[in-house]
Amino acid sequence: MTQDFAQRLLDSLGSDLVTLGADIPPRHCHDWAGLAPVSPLALVRPRRTEDVSALMRLCHAAGVPVVPQGGLSGISGAAHPRADAVALSLDRMNRIERLDPQAAQMVAEAGVVLEVAQTAARDAGMMLGIDIGARGSCQLGGVIATNAGGNTVIRYGMAREHVLGLEAVLADGTVISDMAGLIKNNAGMDVKQLFIGTEGLLGVVTRCILRLQPEPRAIETALCAVADTDGALALLAHLRAALGPQLSSFEVMWPSFYNIMASGAGLALPLPAGGPHVLVEATGFSDTALRAGIEEALGEALEQGIVGDAILAKSAQEGRGLWAVRESVSEYPVILGPLVPFDVSIPLRRMSATVALIETGIADRWPGARALTYGHIGDNNLHLVVALPEPEDHAAEKALKAFVYDAIRAAGGTVSAEHGIGAIKRDYLAHSRTPEEIALMRAIKRTMDPGDILNRGKSFDP
Amino acid sequence: MTQDFAQRLLDSLGSDLVTLGADIPPRHCHDWAGLAPVSPLALVRPRRTEDVSALMRLCHAAGVPVVPQGGLSGISGAAHPRADAVALSLDRMNRIERLDPQAAQMVAEAGVVLEVAQTAARDAGMMLGIDIGARGSCQLGGVIATNAGGNTVIRYGMAREHVLGLEAVLADGTVISDMAGLIKNNAGMDVKQLFIGTEGLLGVVTRCILRLQPEPRAIETALCAVADTDGALALLAHLRAALGPQLSSFEVMWPSFYNIMASGAGLALPLPAGGPHVLVEATGFSDTALRAGIEEALGEALEQGIVGDAILAKSAQEGRGLWAVRESVSEYPVILGPLVPFDVSIPLRRMSATVALIETGIADRWPGARALTYGHIGDNNLHLVVALPEPEDHAAEKALKAFVYDAIRAAGGTVSAEHGIGAIKRDYLAHSRTPEEIALMRAIKRTMDPGDILNRGKSFDP
Repeated sequence: MTQDFAQRLLDSLGSDLVTLGADIPPRHCHDWAGLAPVSPLALVRPRRTEDVSALMRLCHAAGVPVVPQGGLSGISGAAHPRADAVALSLDRMNRIERLDPQAAQMVAEAGVVLEVAQTAARDAGMMLGIDIGARGSCQLGGVIATNAGGNTVIRYGMAREHVLGLEAVLADGTVISDMAGLIKNNAGMDVKQLFIGTEGLLGVVTRCILRLQPEPRAIETALCAVADTDGALALLAHLRAALGPQLSSFEVMWPSFYNIMASGAGLALPLPAGGPHVLVEATGFSDTALRAGIEEALGEALEQGIVGDAILAKSAQEGRGLWAVRESVSEYPVILGPLVPFDVSIPLRRMSATVALIETGIADRWPGARALTYGHIGDNNLHLVVALPEPEDHAAEKALKAFVYDAIRAAGGTVSAEHGIGAIKRDYLAHSRTPEEIALMRAIKRTMDPGDILNRGKSFDP
Repeated sequence: MTQDFAQRLLDSLGSDLVTLGADIPPRHCHDWAGLAPVSPLALVRPRRTEDVSALMRLCHAAGVPVVPQGGLSGISGAAHPRADAVALSLDRMNRIERLDPQAAQMVAEAGVVLEVAQTAARDAGMMLGIDIGARGSCQLGGVIATNAGGNTVIRYGMAREHVLGLEAVLADGTVISDMAGLIKNNAGMDVKQLFIGTEGLLGVVTRCILRLQPEPRAIETALCAVADTDGALALLAHLRAALGPQLSSFEVMWPSFYNIMASGAGLALPLPAGGPHVLVEATGFSDTALRAGIEEALGEALEQGIVGDAILAKSAQEGRGLWAVRESVSEYPVILGPLVPFDVSIPLRRMSATVALIETGIADRWPGARALTYGHIGDNNLHLVVALPEPEDHAAEKALKAFVYDAIRAAGGTVSAEHGIGAIKRDYLAHSRTPEEIALMRAIKRTMDPGDILNRGKSFDP
């Protein structure tokens, strides 16, 4: 019957849009979550919103699930296909429709790759304030559907704060369009919020209007050594007070991360191993003022003992060099082999105790494991990657997850800061959301997608 | 029967929480929308979330409507009571529970007056980035439920962007609590968004966590004369590029506003009458750098002919003086008498033509009417107030609204930028939202409040 449906799709939408069976490119059979590839029932690659709407009407009538796919760079499996579902790739809807520097906004289709959007903004003398590691692959629709974060959230906010307009297609093919691009619009409920961060469960994002930022004219990068986690938090408060919105990145690398990654990647250490290191980036609109501001702020931090040692980059090139250890995460597979990644948030007042508890607990329970801790802690966000001594020990992996997520729950944190729930964190959703919140999510899902066809089996069930 | 219910409320919740009949203070019988006062069935003033939950359970079971009330300063009638409904005032839930400068957040009950929250933040060396004219009356719950805007939206965003945590009570008394205060939390749907800007139709906001900002150390104020609306937009783009996030207010006063209000309020004109005037405020973290930045930016604007004339305040006192004409709006009743206020947004690329069309159209159609135009146009937001020649001419008022809102619809704008729909703009909701958006709002409302007891008759109907 499902094969009949696939044939019906081909007949209705045509071979330009629909690909079946062995013709489906392998890249659409998985995302970056590491799950076993699955060939979907069909791959549909619409050219316009009407195509998406037509597809959804057919699937809605037949009760066939649909898995929306963007750049497939998600690591929670939200875009991972199912054998009984249509994979809906937005990759052909990749036009930037309008770029308006005066209104500071960009109108684009969902399939535009983030880096293409960033470049277009820069070419127009502006800047897109969203940046994540997957910039060369991820698409705007996925960025919005997962409410993506990244290194500059401390300055520009999560993806939600950038969305000034949205178009989405509901489970039954209805097109919801709020594309006026108004910063202020309090006419009734702001329904576009429903599609941000809901991983395609409530609708398929097809077009968007994103806020643009004035491009900073100056940048400063510094690396600071602090005594401990509390020292990092004190530095955060100090720099925020001194620099205000000029503080654009605040990346903490605990010794576990800094030492292993620097030596593993063969990088010279800009500062000797020791307490946590903090990578600070500040951006501004005057070279001399920004330089003076950060020099004064770091000077005060050294004087007050908040910082033990610090390097302020003398050039843009030296600044990029300071990022090298932090950016060595792309070398994980080489340095660490298979690993278990965590993406969690912790309230700041619980950060110090929780990091210590997790690091100590892992060392005690799994001798020989390597646990690396780093994160965007100005946003509460901690990344932790663990290489277990026996990579294929699934029981140990399960126990490790239970241990870490229980610690996060006890601290009042979340099991997903920025990567979403997708397919792989469903068992832990209730660690971070109350039964009442989950019941409400389910009620909204049942209302908007009574047949449960949109990304069935991901995030939360109706 | 409703009187029976009122008595039952009194018996269940007690006389400390419930007030009936003539004992209900007149202030709870209306908000600032100017609608005729109505005495509610009962006034309930809870002391804690559990009281709100108990009230909602009783009302839900009996099908009795509830009108949530904050500071009652809304001007769209969202908090206006009904004779068949309980007025639920949050004014006693007015504790600031925690103020955490390190995490840059404040935990507070919904009934905290905005100005009290602002002062508490300042006392802790931080700043709350929300400021509206009603600061001395409005309460945080109302600020959130109406997604309030104000003069600093261009810098800090609407209320939605400040809400890091929220607690709300649903129609059936269920408490939804997301009070972890995490900047990043992508665990499933972010249900707190449902309660922001929905005017109490989906739940009653009882507690919140608000983001705090580092307090700027420097402020500069300037008044600029530009040639026309396009000149104001050119100045906006110029200052945004030059000052970045230091640009904290950009208030345009068209001649219709500037001339009438200055002479009506007896204010000396800082700059002679002429083309639109723009009040610019910039804030930063270094006195000398900010001064140099704004001097250079204004100098360039003068040189390039974007600005015809400009005054840069030499002191904080002079800066406050430049705000005098803009802030003379509190003198409306004296200067203009009864008036019809509009709060609309317009896409920037349609701003110039739409302002001209509306001003000319009003002059043509209602000779003798005085129409004053001003606004936060960096946020698309235009305020327009019209004093008709015959204040009690309801047919003219209706025709005026139809004329203005039709022009806004044609421009792709919204009939409510920041004041909400409430009781008084319901007829125009469809001017700014598509049938599909409204159908979705209704479906969500039916799901979350099947008995339509929460703020029945406001904003949109189930």
